[in-house]
Formats: sequence, structure tokens, C-alpha cells
Amino acid sequence: MTAEPIRITGARITPVAFADPPLLNTVGVHQPYALRAIVQLDTDAGLVGLGETYADTRHLARLEAAAEAITGLDAFALNAIRAAIADRLRGDDAAVGTAGMITTASAVDQVLSPFEVACLDVQGHATGRPVSDLLGGKVRDAVPFSAYLFYKWAAHPGREPDSWGEALDPVGIVAQATRMIDEYGFTAIKLKGGVFPPDEEMRAIEALRQAFPDHPLRLDPNAAWTPQTSVKVAAGLAGILEYLEDPTPGIEGMAEVAAQSPMPLATNMCVVAFEQLAPAVAAGSVGVVLSDHHYWGGLYRSRLLAGICDTFGLGLSMHSNSHLGISLAAMVHLAGATPNLTYACDTHWPWKTEDVVKPGVLSIRDGAVAVPTTSGLGVEIDDDALAALHEQYVTCGIRDRDDTGYMQSIDPTFQAASPRW
Amino acid sequence: MTAEPIRITGARITPVAFADPPLLNTVGVHQPYALRAIVQLDTDAGLVGLGETYADTRHLARLEAAAEAITGLDAFALNAIRAAIADRLRGDDAAVGTAGMITTASAVDQVLSPFEVACLDVQGHATGRPVSDLLGGKVRDAVPFSAYLFYKWAAHPGREPDSWGEALDPVGIVAQATRMIDEYGFTAIKLKGGVFPPDEEMRAIEALRQAFPDHPLRLDPNAAWTPQTSVKVAAGLAGILEYLEDPTPGIEGMAEVAAQSPMPLATNMCVVAFEQLAPAVAAGSVGVVLSDHHYWGGLYRSRLLAGICDTFGLGLSMHSNSHLGISLAAMVHLAGATPNLTYACDTHWPWKTEDVVKPGVLSIRDGAVAVPTTSGLGVEIDDDALAALHEQYVTCGIRDRDDTGYMQSIDPTFQAASPRW
Ligand SMILES: [Mg+2]
Ligand SMILES: [Mg+2]
Repeated sequence: MTAEPIRITGARITPVAFADPPLLNTVGVHQPYALRAIVQLDTDAGLVGLGETYADTRHLARLEAAAEAITGLDAFALNAIRAAIADRLRGDDAAVGTAGMITTASAVDQVLSPFEVACLDVQGHATGRPVSDLLGGKVRDAVPFSAYLFYKWAAHPGREPDSWGEALDPVGIVAQATRMIDEYGFTAIKLKGGVFPPDEEMRAIEALRQAFPDHPLRLDPNAAWTPQTSVKVAAGLAGILEYLEDPTPGIEGMAEVAAQSPMPLATNMCVVAFEQLAPAVAAGSVGVVLSDHHYWGGLYRSRLLAGICDTFGLGLSMHSNSHLGISLAAMVHLAGATPNLTYACDTHWPWKTEDVVKPGVLSIRDGAVAVPTTSGLGVEIDDDALAALHEQYVTCGIRDRDDTGYMQSIDPTFQAASPRW
Repeated sequence: MTAEPIRITGARITPVAFADPPLLNTVGVHQPYALRAIVQLDTDAGLVGLGETYADTRHLARLEAAAEAITGLDAFALNAIRAAIADRLRGDDAAVGTAGMITTASAVDQVLSPFEVACLDVQGHATGRPVSDLLGGKVRDAVPFSAYLFYKWAAHPGREPDSWGEALDPVGIVAQATRMIDEYGFTAIKLKGGVFPPDEEMRAIEALRQAFPDHPLRLDPNAAWTPQTSVKVAAGLAGILEYLEDPTPGIEGMAEVAAQSPMPLATNMCVVAFEQLAPAVAAGSVGVVLSDHHYWGGLYRSRLLAGICDTFGLGLSMHSNSHLGISLAAMVHLAGATPNLTYACDTHWPWKTEDVVKPGVLSIRDGAVAVPTTSGLGVEIDDDALAALHEQYVTCGIRDRDDTGYMQSIDPTFQAASPRW
């Protein structure tokens, strides 16, 4: 029997906006809405695959071009699909910046990602298999995530406060952690730093250690510090941090800090593309890579990254941008099928109140999300919710993520600077 | 719909022996029969998956233990299958030597390989997809192989001559190449060296260059030379060799030669396991890795190796041991779906006269083998042929590959030595 291809007939790409709290970071503050693009990949078999990615203007245009380039290809032909997208994007290869923080990723891999995930969803439906089975099978039934703490305001200026309230000091951060752990059972904690001077953030970490003596702790200032500052913070938090994430910019700066740091350095900034792995390994820049299928080119290529980390003695964790349920499902299938993904993954999940998938499949219990066991990704679009969040995109006026510009609209003296301290 | 597992119910492991010509190499000479183990993996769905590997005594015992360890697991659960085999082999981790040449491979990956291939065959049959589709889809319709030339005797002592006759000098090698290229259309040529002093083998390469001015040429002395000799040969063959394969032993020796060699060095000896990649990359030992799914742990892990080569700027080619049709099918699916496998692959295929698969699917035309397009590996067992080659195994008396011992039985003064010159 010769196999019948499952031909891609097109993709419906829907930009959506969902409410996002005023979470602070070193480049500014989250805007009132976070943007995502929802990909519904259609096939001649009638199967529909789901994908999710950024929705910045330039990225949306590339997604449309990519959808056209892969129409007619078999949903199993992932190599050909990547080649077709690379062909279409030739000469247009700057990555989408996601607020200026992931600027050197591969544009091809960023654009490929939602289509690859959607193809795996189609493959799963066609074969009656969960996506995790297409990645070698799950090695854990549930994937642990970390509580992702943010310094934040009580409200976006001029709007109603969200339910989380203000967190601008150690007391606020511990209160945030307490609620988040009470509600979701997280067994690890990450604090987004780079917002206040390093001494203040060290005090927040020390307060977390006192309040949660057994939770692994992480701090991520998004390259806000010089190497010298980073070394000082690392020494001060020896024995407290599980890993220190992107204290300083660049492969060389990170290597300088890594050589003197008592804990491993992790990154989702200086190693965000395959071509950065060899120099980072040679320099000894990082001990842990945070994978992210949105910029590493989907799940197959994220598994390649995992294998590279395993081979070159690097730890593996997982990065998160603000995301919806399709991406969470993809993250859970990938993490569930990756033996060496031994750190709790990041997720912004608790911060959002809206979604495009039907509820019930994905939930955080005891700090972990169960790997869906039905075919494909295991999640379904809620058409009404998708329409509502698209309408919100249309009306909200945001077209590109810009944490810095939004912060400057509130505080005209604000300047993004890396390193800042 | 929750997916139904396809449970492994057991494996039939059949050692076979097939006639092999007296091909010379630096450790001795091929015995009159080459051994292989044929794996038929049974499942509760009635689907049977095929695999093929070495059949040395110790390996056979491990295969039986592994078959027991994975019985009951889902044929999609490749991560769990590898873990179960690793568990079973704990403390018994020396690789099978294949005539003393691949001694530092991972025993787990060697044992996993035929079962992983058989599982992918099952997956392919279950989903109606060729194995290449389970690897991202083929990127070429046919996989180019190289003509694999050997110094050889006209006959095994005391037996009838084979059809190829003697090849012990440049004239004999060119004649062998001429017939092989006439019959199969190969577009690249590899000479197995390490048999005669390097000057003689250089003259053979020069004769091949004259006779086949457009064919890429390779020479593989299996680490028969010191670094100093290797550098001299490399300089003498500058502009003639596409790559020089394993001139000298070890990661350090290869690095010393690589630094002075005008052409890339290739290896299937100093990098045969994942843990050797980091030191080889750091030392700059090799420019090309010859993958081989028999010791790199099957097709998924060979694809990981391919991705690592792509990421770290290494070329990728493919190694061959004497093999039958199941392995050729697996090699062709893998190579067909690996974008950066840009060198012609090695195969011993033309040297054999017997097989266990039904004829018709695999053949070398214009130097290439078409990737099968039917489900799974695309090959079927010929039960009578399998029984006959098993009977030949039973009666031939060979239980472990031993090129050196066989050579010493003919020439008692022979000593395996690496380096020899
Ligand atoms: Mg980060
Ligand atoms: Mg070799």
C-alpha cells in the first residue's frame, strides 16, 4: 500500500488579543493586551491542525506568506515544509523581537513553529495518537511548571485593578507566591527581575527562601546587569538559587559570569538559535538552556535542542511568553516526551483570564499539567472565544508588542538599557 | 478518542550467516560468512516490525534480554523502550566490537537499534506511512551510495573464487571500480585501505583519479597510520580526496592530523557515541561524521546526530557494515529524510549474494537506492531465505566476527596493530 498524503489546503491565521496584567520587566511593562496568532491548518482530509505564535505585524505577514508557501504539501513532509518557508523568507530574516528580548532567533524557525505544531496535530488526529507519541512517547504523565512571579502594579493606569494587586517589594512578592502556590501547587518559583536595583531583588529572593524553604528558586533579570554586578549577585545568592537566568547580555558576558558563579547560568537570550550553540558551548556561557518551541522551530527541532543539551552536558528547562492553551498543550506534549527536561518549565498561564480553547483539558494541579492522552494536541478551538478575542484584537489598537513604549507613555523618563546596573 | 497502544508481545531474533568475499582490511580479512541478527517484532495488533543488527554471541544474548524487557510496551513509546533496555543492560555496557573496530559505542544504543527500527516499521504500518515520513519526510527520492572498493583475494583459501577476482594493486582496484560502476552507476568511490603500505594505497587512489576523473574519492585505512604518516598521505592526496577517513586512532591523534590536513577528516571510529561528540568538537578532530544507525541507537537518534552535525558545522556521511536488506531499507529511509546528509553513503551491498528480504524493492540504479514509498520500511521477509540463512548460521560455525583470527589462521605471522605504519 502506498501512503496517501494529507495535503495542506491552507491556513486560517487569526490574530487575537487577551487581557494581560501590568507585569514589569527590565524593558518596561506588559501592555493591557497580549497578542497571539492562532493558526488553523486545513487539509484535504478534513483534519484541522492547531498552532499558536506571536502576532506582531511583521510576523503576521510572514505567517500568511508561509501558509501560501506550504499549501499543497503533505502534513507529514516537515522537512519540505521547513525548506518551503526558508525559501519564501529568504532575504527577510530578522527575527520578531518580542519586546526587544529575543532578537537573534531564526525568523524561519519562528515562522515554521506554529505550522509544524499544527502539522503534528494533524498527524496525531490522522494516526489516533497524542502528539507526545510522535515525539517518542511521554516519559512523565504530568509536566511540572514553576510559579512565575512578577513585580507588578495593582492596575494598568486608568483601568480597574486585577485580582492580584500590587507587588513591588519582598512582601508583595511573597504574597503573590503564596496565592499562586496555594491555588496551583507549584513546586518551583521563578521571579522576573531586572526591575529594581539588584539588592532589592536579592532581598525578594531571600524572603522567598524564608517563606518557601523547599522550593527551587530562580531569578531572571533579562540581562539587566553588568558582568561585575552579576558576579556579586550570584555570590550573594549562593546556595539559594537553582539557576540564575540571563544576568548579563551576550555569550561573552555570560561566559565571564559563568566562570565565577556558584550556580548554573540559564538563558533564553544569548542562545536562542542553533547557530549560537557552538559558540556558547565553546565559551562555557551557560549551564542550562531554556527551550521554547516558538523560536526553536517547533517540537521536532526543540527535541533536537534537547538532544544537543544532553550531548554537550547542558541542562534543559523551558521558556514561556504570554500564551494561550494551544501553546500550553504543545509545551506539555514536548516536555512530557523529553527525558532530560528535568527542570520545572516556565508558564505565564495563571496571569491570563481568557483563552481560545475549550476548557477542561488543561489545568495546573500540584504544580503540573497532565499530558493530554487524546489524539493530536488534545485541545479544541472554542469558536466563540476565538471570535471574541479576535474582536478584542481589532479594537484594542495594539499591533506590536512594545513594553518599552507602553512604559514610556506612563513614565516619559523611562529608558530601556541593558545592562542597567 | 484516547489512542490505543500497540503493545509489543515479543520478538523473534534469528541469527543468520551470509556468504562474504575475502575483503581485506587492516585488522585482517572478512570471514567466509558474515553474521546478522534479524529481529521480527510482534505486536498485539498483529503488525510485525523488522530490524537487523550484528549477531555476535554477546550481542545476541543482549538482544534476547532486551526483547524481554520491552515486551508489553507500546511500539510508539520509544523513550520508554530505550529506558527499559538501558535498565536491563546496566552494568553490562561494553559495546560489541565488530572485529575490533567499533569498540567504544554505546551498548544500549547498539541493542536498542534493531528494536527501534522495528518499532518505526510497526508505526509505519499502523499509520500507512513510510518510515521516512516518521522522520520528517524524504528530501530526496533516491539516496546516493558510493562504490565501496576492497583489496581482496580471488577466493577464501580452499574455496571457489568469487566473481570479483583478486584486487591487490592499483590495476586490480581500478578493474574492481570499473565493474562496480558499470553495474551500479555509483557516482562516488571509497577505497578500504590500511592493508598495504600507504605509498601503495596512494598509488591506487591516483590510479582511480585517472580512471574516474569526476568521481569524489575517499580512502579509509581504519586508523592504520601514525599522525605523522597521516599528514604525509593527506598532503600527497591534496585535491584528490573528498575526505580522508580515520587515518589515525583517537580524538587527539585525529585532531593533530586535522590541523594539518588539506581535506576534511571523516570518522566512524573516534566518534561512535554521543559522549564522544563534545570532546571531538572541542579538539577539532573531524570534519565529517559517518553516522550508522546500528550503533547510534536507531533512526531517531541518528537524526539527532545529524542535527548535531548541522549545528556544530560538521559534515555528515553514512557508514556501512556488511548488511542485508532490512538495514539497507532503514539506511535509505533515514538518509532520504536527512537534509544535511549530502555525501554519498557507504554500503557493502554489492559484495553479498544472499538476502532475507523479498527482492524487488531495493536496488542500486545510477548509484542510488530509491526510498520505498509503501508503509513502514517497505521490505518483507522471505521466510524460506531466512530459514536458509539461519541454517547456514547454524552450520558455518562462526559465532563472532573475527577478521584477525581468520587472517591468522591463514597467515600465522599476521598481527593487528593500530597504527601499523
Ligand atoms: Mg528569561
Ligand atoms: Mg570507516
